[in-house]
Amino acid sequence: MDRIHNGWFSEINKQWPGQAMSIEVEEVIYEGKSKFQEILVFKSKSFGTVLVLDGVIQCTDRDEFSYQEMISMLPLNSHPNPKKVLVIGGGDGGVIREASKHPSVESIVQCEIDEDVINISKKYLPNMAVGYTSPKLTQHIGDGFEYMKNHENEFDVIITDSSDPVGPAEALFQQSYYELMKRALKPDGLLCCQGECQWIHLPLIKSMVEFCKTLFSVVSYGYTTIPTYPCGQIGFMLCSKDKNTRFENPKIVLSDQQVEDLGFRYYNSDIHKAAFVLPQFAKKGLGL
Amino acid sequence: MDRIHNGWFSEINKQWPGQAMSIEVEEVIYEGKSKFQEILVFKSKSFGTVLVLDGVIQCTDRDEFSYQEMISMLPLNSHPNPKKVLVIGGGDGGVIREASKHPSVESIVQCEIDEDVINISKKYLPNMAVGYTSPKLTQHIGDGFEYMKNHENEFDVIITDSSDPVGPAEALFQQSYYELMKRALKPDGLLCCQGECQWIHLPLIKSMVEFCKTLFSVVSYGYTTIPTYPCGQIGFMLCSKDKNTRFENPKIVLSDQQVEDLGFRYYNSDIHKAAFVLPQFAKKGLGL
Repeated sequence: MDRIHNGWFSEINKQWPGQAMSIEVEEVIYEGKSKFQEILVFKSKSFGTVLVLDGVIQCTDRDEFSYQEMISMLPLNSHPNPKKVLVIGGGDGGVIREASKHPSVESIVQCEIDEDVINISKKYLPNMAVGYTSPKLTQHIGDGFEYMKNHENEFDVIITDSSDPVGPAEALFQQSYYELMKRALKPDGLLCCQGECQWIHLPLIKSMVEFCKTLFSVVSYGYTTIPTYPCGQIGFMLCSKDKNTRFENPKIVLSDQQVEDLGFRYYNSDIHKAAFVLPQFAKKGLGL
Repeated sequence: MDRIHNGWFSEINKQWPGQAMSIEVEEVIYEGKSKFQEILVFKSKSFGTVLVLDGVIQCTDRDEFSYQEMISMLPLNSHPNPKKVLVIGGGDGGVIREASKHPSVESIVQCEIDEDVINISKKYLPNMAVGYTSPKLTQHIGDGFEYMKNHENEFDVIITDSSDPVGPAEALFQQSYYELMKRALKPDGLLCCQGECQWIHLPLIKSMVEFCKTLFSVVSYGYTTIPTYPCGQIGFMLCSKDKNTRFENPKIVLSDQQVEDLGFRYYNSDIHKAAFVLPQFAKKGLGL
């Protein structure tokens, strides 16, 4: 794990050839290897604590709110009454922190394959791992794929907060995974998955949109800006079994006061709508 | 100019401490110093040709369209009939390329302080410098500040395509510059300036919004995503002397066919509107 040179961590990776985000390191806090992946935690000069899995930045204290709020609220507020939520992945706890804020949500099941990520987050990323104190949460350590095989017609919303399609999360970008999610959702259920970056992975996203359209009544692609992900943004694949879902028109609209009370720093109902407005190259490339 | 190490250019800069975009270099094409700044041009592995001024990435072949289309079309399509346009800066030619596409625009004056940037762009950045072939263009080599002192009540739209507020562009972020633009604009004129990044420079942007509000009837802040600018995005300050201007509701709305015919890869009328929807932290921080 020789990823730090001259005091800088650089996210050099074959998934985004020829470009790299670099973050100045103050102190390495943890370095190790779980059953599934390399784990690195460091304190940075200007992004707070940073979690890195297999060399890829997962979250930083400074900008994680953008990702966690958007991957949680885009689906939850597109559903008229989300009560039972399944989170696949999300080991840092941030998605559970956000989802548990939602007034309709009664129960959250988390299925995370790598217990080490949970424990390390509890130790070093308290701002995200605070999610683990939610009374709404039931935890399951294991493979999301396997979990869903035994759960049918059960969830209003499924959120997949995964790493990239290399290593432990590879299967989570395939049609068979989306088929299992469809089965685990109630008849009017919907889902949101980490959906890679339109500036880098448009062909992958396009192929995913295509197979999703064969499975779901409504398929949309949205995105959020976030400085420490490649190209400064990350997308979300959203699919619904209910033909009346309009992801770009949230069912639950928040007042300024509600946004304030829920403590959102990125999400509001206008940014929800704007998240689905794609630049021309992506709109054309994805046929959306 | 020792900015390239082990085949990678890194944009380390005090303006965005602790973070850096790195781009893999294939070949350095030009390296020199003009009267105003250090100029570096290199061919990259995956972003085409890259122009760097004083160590800061100005544009790359792969993503420049986002910036050039947005900084040009956000103001031009917010004006009902923009005929006479002043471009301050924009030495690479990209803004002129875009502005000259606009059917209403009859004349474009460019005022660029650094002739070397123009000549180097003509030589090494033909996709942008193609703007210099526009019959609508009149060129003026000199300081935008000085130029405007002698031009009053003349322009429908002023676009300031500048580098950051360090070095030759420092004055272009100050109130006195906005006062000169106000004077150079017609009574219903409007302007758009490169406006830094909401993730990094919120206090600077806030102070600019505040002085702009004392000068103009309408002040807005929008942004575009662009992978090779710090944090993957860049903002725009937009001000109008006409109290009826609504930057988020373009006066000129383009059909899909017009977007196609004009060759836009980022801009369309929906993304124009969405560009003004700010994340909660920026909406609150800027009081917009």
